[in-house]
Amino acid sequence: MEKPRLLQGFRDYLPDVMQARLRLLEKVRAVYERYGFEPLDTPALEYAELLKGKYGEDEKLIYEFKDHGGRDVALRYDLTVPLARVVVSHPELPKPFKRYQMGTVWRADSPQAGRFREFMQFDADTVGSNSPLADAEMVAMMMAVLQALSLDHYHIRISHRGVFSALLQSLSISTSDQPAVMRLLDKMDKVGEKTVKAELSKLLNAKVISELFSLLKHDDTDTLLAELHRRLTHNEAGQKAIANFSDIINMLSILPDAAHWHIDLSMVRGLQYYTGIIYEAGLTDHPEVGTIYAGGRYDSLMRDLAGVEAPAVGTSLGVDRLMAVYGAEQAAAPRVVLTVFSGMEKQSFELAERLRQAGLSLRVAYGQTKLGKQLQYADALGASQALLYGEAEEEKGIVLVRDMQTGDQKEHHIEPITDLVTALRRE
Amino acid sequence: MEKPRLLQGFRDYLPDVMQARLRLLEKVRAVYERYGFEPLDTPALEYAELLKGKYGEDEKLIYEFKDHGGRDVALRYDLTVPLARVVVSHPELPKPFKRYQMGTVWRADSPQAGRFREFMQFDADTVGSNSPLADAEMVAMMMAVLQALSLDHYHIRISHRGVFSALLQSLSISTSDQPAVMRLLDKMDKVGEKTVKAELSKLLNAKVISELFSLLKHDDTDTLLAELHRRLTHNEAGQKAIANFSDIINMLSILPDAAHWHIDLSMVRGLQYYTGIIYEAGLTDHPEVGTIYAGGRYDSLMRDLAGVEAPAVGTSLGVDRLMAVYGAEQAAAPRVVLTVFSGMEKQSFELAERLRQAGLSLRVAYGQTKLGKQLQYADALGASQALLYGEAEEEKGIVLVRDMQTGDQKEHHIEPITDLVTALRRE
Repeated sequence: MEKPRLLQGFRDYLPDVMQARLRLLEKVRAVYERYGFEPLDTPALEYAELLKGKYGEDEKLIYEFKDHGGRDVALRYDLTVPLARVVVSHPELPKPFKRYQMGTVWRADSPQAGRFREFMQFDADTVGSNSPLADAEMVAMMMAVLQALSLDHYHIRISHRGVFSALLQSLSISTSDQPAVMRLLDKMDKVGEKTVKAELSKLLNAKVISELFSLLKHDDTDTLLAELHRRLTHNEAGQKAIANFSDIINMLSILPDAAHWHIDLSMVRGLQYYTGIIYEAGLTDHPEVGTIYAGGRYDSLMRDLAGVEAPAVGTSLGVDRLMAVYGAEQAAAPRVVLTVFSGMEKQSFELAERLRQAGLSLRVAYGQTKLGKQLQYADALGASQALLYGEAEEEKGIVLVRDMQTGDQKEHHIEPITDLVTALRRE
Repeated sequence: MEKPRLLQGFRDYLPDVMQARLRLLEKVRAVYERYGFEPLDTPALEYAELLKGKYGEDEKLIYEFKDHGGRDVALRYDLTVPLARVVVSHPELPKPFKRYQMGTVWRADSPQAGRFREFMQFDADTVGSNSPLADAEMVAMMMAVLQALSLDHYHIRISHRGVFSALLQSLSISTSDQPAVMRLLDKMDKVGEKTVKAELSKLLNAKVISELFSLLKHDDTDTLLAELHRRLTHNEAGQKAIANFSDIINMLSILPDAAHWHIDLSMVRGLQYYTGIIYEAGLTDHPEVGTIYAGGRYDSLMRDLAGVEAPAVGTSLGVDRLMAVYGAEQAAAPRVVLTVFSGMEKQSFELAERLRQAGLSLRVAYGQTKLGKQLQYADALGASQALLYGEAEEEKGIVLVRDMQTGDQKEHHIEPITDLVTALRRE
């Protein structure tokens, strides 16, 4: 028989990784619930039609096929399009609708280091409100999540698509040139300022480029906004964007972690659909993992996706990127293994049952007959302690607790069982 | 724009259902961890070849298609075949390998009431040991799970495929007739004893049928096993099966919940691959949901699936069936909604942040301007309490706590914030 293989670009999550992953998701979930977000799940398969025309060039990455009934179906490509379908299908849901979703998505991308064809997205979105409170809440929640994960060295860059667009207008950069300018600025982190300026010079004259960069690099937000306000006196959309951005920043100023975020108008994010605030977070002590959290306001996407008028703001957590850091920092849970002496199977089963009922997580080493092999098994599992329970121990009402690091063995009374469990947990 | 639709046989899990679902999974997970099982996840897509020849006639239900690279790929049909692939691909995993997996599977079945094309399986399996301790542990764990879910009215029927097969042999029922006899007995719950006997009469003579039923209905297990032991003196496999079953039952006898299980050799379960103990659980107060938990020992399946010698025992939880009962019994979490007065946005944001940092789950009603509409929103969410925080309250350092049931409003001091959170949680 040929050895079965994984498909390229796909992966198994083995227990140690999966444990850390579930712990991470659980902690994020707890924060999201505190912020009033509720879980949603949607199918892996959708009508292919729903996904078509939504992802531009990347549409070719959609896994699409005909099902048994001849319908064109597709594996979901993200969680935003299914969210739009749910919102339009369930008008009864109270608005704003605040949901989070942890879900696998599939993209037939070329597999390369760190890029997979199947990966998890973990999104939180508020649909149906354009209040700056919703935006500020999203940033505060990201900070609360990173804090809950004990990731103290993070930084959030915040910008505003509307303000940015107004800034370009104030420099008389035409709306048709704006997407190209944005795309170039988006590359700044990768290719550096010099290259970006050289590329920009094909579109803009030197004076405009110089003014653009001096505005982008303003390190005092109030001065920048005042300057933009002055330049955009007759631009209503621009004034509204500035007012909206000011409202959000004003709220964020109450957060105790002011050092964890700053305004950076040169941060533009790739996606076209943002209309208001945008933000992205990275780890300052792990710059190599890149952006771990990002999102923004998208007030027309729901209309484009599903014909429903619903201003929205959202954020997406990079679970895989975060796991590269978080997984490594999490120690595996300590494991206790109960060995089984021949003839003591029933008594060992009973002891195991009692320990588990008292709340202890326990493995029974029933795979091997010999004690030596059982201890090897405990070792392979990374157990911190092994329990030895033979006839002599049963008679004395004790177990031998073996420290798997040192090999030291200590007697411990079985009764009261809760004391034994406490001792095993502490050691 | 046409209203986007769900595919037939698929479903969305809206927040209330999803909340209950996550709570259920979390509780089961906690028990599985206590029993030393660890989480595993595998991809949704596998090489189609891996799934072929594994499911008999049902193979036609597999979602299969060609991917972008022209590979034949398929959506996983169950979690057992991927488990076999993982076990054979990772010989370094200590054996017995104990894993649980919560995973979606896909089957292109005809959709009908309660049958979906996408559903969750929640399996726990011990691979690499044939110890009766592994079997007894599995039954004990099922009982611990049902107890953890506060489902007190459950009953587990236990049988043994080896003993059953020996029983048929003791009646000189040929091995070629045995699968047909099993299939008929498996229908007993659905079609009744009379119909089964009528069908059996096409295969067996009346005396054999009568003897078969008298053995199956033995209500004293010891007598039955002694009787089988006597009949099978020269049948080595039969003797081994009886000894194995006795060992397992002997262990189970230490469990405090003896009334929750009994031996029923007429319970045969559909799947061919079982080789030892089999079990299935139902709810006595909800017989309509059918089997909610089932499994057994399968010592040759891993060899058949992946060419690896690994005796195994497992159990599968019927999440959807359980949710039909469990979901209904779970009250939604109480919700607290903070209303927002015009001009108080920043202060409201600050109060919300402080309450959340102190551990309260909270929604802010920023979707609406008018208080009446905000209270309607709180009502639609099923909130138990709304907080009113206007300028007058800010000055006095209080919030008004409105009971959403009665409309009563009480003042409550904001400081210390932990007292406010405690009060809001208790009410």
